[in-house]
Amino acid sequence: MTQPFLLGVLGGMGPLATVDFLSTLLAVTPAASDQQQIPTVVWNVPQIADRQKALAGTGPSPLPQLLTGIARLNQAGASHIVIPCNTAHHWFSALSDVSRAPLIHIVEATISAVVEASPTPQRIGIIATKGTLDAGWFQHGLQQHGITPVVPDEVELETWFVPGCYAVKRGALAEGGAAFVHQAKALFERGAEKLILACTEVPVALRAVNAPFLPLTFDPAQALAERCSKIWQDHRTSYLT
Amino acid sequence: MTQPFLLGVLGGMGPLATVDFLSTLLAVTPAASDQQQIPTVVWNVPQIADRQKALAGTGPSPLPQLLTGIARLNQAGASHIVIPCNTAHHWFSALSDVSRAPLIHIVEATISAVVEASPTPQRIGIIATKGTLDAGWFQHGLQQHGITPVVPDEVELETWFVPGCYAVKRGALAEGGAAFVHQAKALFERGAEKLILACTEVPVALRAVNAPFLPLTFDPAQALAERCSKIWQDHRTSYLT
Repeated sequence: MTQPFLLGVLGGMGPLATVDFLSTLLAVTPAASDQQQIPTVVWNVPQIADRQKALAGTGPSPLPQLLTGIARLNQAGASHIVIPCNTAHHWFSALSDVSRAPLIHIVEATISAVVEASPTPQRIGIIATKGTLDAGWFQHGLQQHGITPVVPDEVELETWFVPGCYAVKRGALAEGGAAFVHQAKALFERGAEKLILACTEVPVALRAVNAPFLPLTFDPAQALAERCSKIWQDHRTSYLT
Repeated sequence: MTQPFLLGVLGGMGPLATVDFLSTLLAVTPAASDQQQIPTVVWNVPQIADRQKALAGTGPSPLPQLLTGIARLNQAGASHIVIPCNTAHHWFSALSDVSRAPLIHIVEATISAVVEASPTPQRIGIIATKGTLDAGWFQHGLQQHGITPVVPDEVELETWFVPGCYAVKRGALAEGGAAFVHQAKALFERGAEKLILACTEVPVALRAVNAPFLPLTFDPAQALAERCSKIWQDHRTSYLT
């Protein structure tokens, strides 16, 4: 191994979701001492163009700031890089192309977690930004395993998801959580057995309101953290001297 | 301003305390959007020599790893650097000497917060590592303002503080919190009106056990976060375009 393990986290989208991801990384890593915990370098710079507006064609692209973050994480010695923001995966290929450290994809980590769950659900709802839904990553990943995706319609997104998301971003977790609960119920009513909470603001807010259906959800950030932790645990025997 | 504001956080001591500090930074910063939140780059690498053992002469110095962290944060563009670990401030001068970005001292931020509190206490207890207590930073800072410090004795440190601290580091927050409660009560019984929780593990654990005397405590990490947030708020008007 030429490069010691060091997880680079391209965060800031939003900053609270990034800190939540860092907490999850620690929580899913068995460690008897500080030294056994996963080493990370984190770029948590929220001064970045709005991803939802960029994909809607109503704002500038965040790509220049994302490229800066990737460059700084590589300079800091990251051996692997993750982005705890589903929507930002629109620029995944462009970022992978210029990064020395390999990027780990949040959708791949999530679909693996869904498929490993027992029993595997037949219908899964997806709560996500319009950009993520339009990209179709989660739907495609589920369909490859014979699972039917259930997605919000335009009216639901405008009524519940988008306002909920911006509420979280200004710190109003209870307001955001209440909006996401409406969205979740609509998906359950259309036959979803479980939900993928495919926007990092959503699980933060649903935990804040103690949503009773949380055990029926998959959190892509948690799946990504578990994937990273597993890689670290495979490395740390040789890393710790 | 030649260097845009970017707070460098030299963390990992321990990794949980670092994440707690990042949460506090967000909580103390009024922000109506992601973009108004404080930008940070975080070195959360816990593979660093034990500070308590180094100061007790029973383990290697963490200075080489601290210097690496300072170098990486400067390379990443940090304009200011903080260390959310009281004990690591033993190496503050050595780190300041080599850092382009100025370091903000946790003790100065804390003493300012204590002095600004109204009414100013006459006797303040300090819960800290032996290394921090032997250094005398907090005692000296309090005495300069006519406040009498009340400190744990050797037996209390060995019975409560040290086991509590290592309990937190292995994730046993309730066990650590219970030990710190004993230490706090001893200081209150010796006349302390308030306490400085001068080890970043302590407030995390006391919050986990809902210690009833938390309103009577000063948290240096919180004081440091508030100082950083204030600097950011002074900068952000010119920073945001």
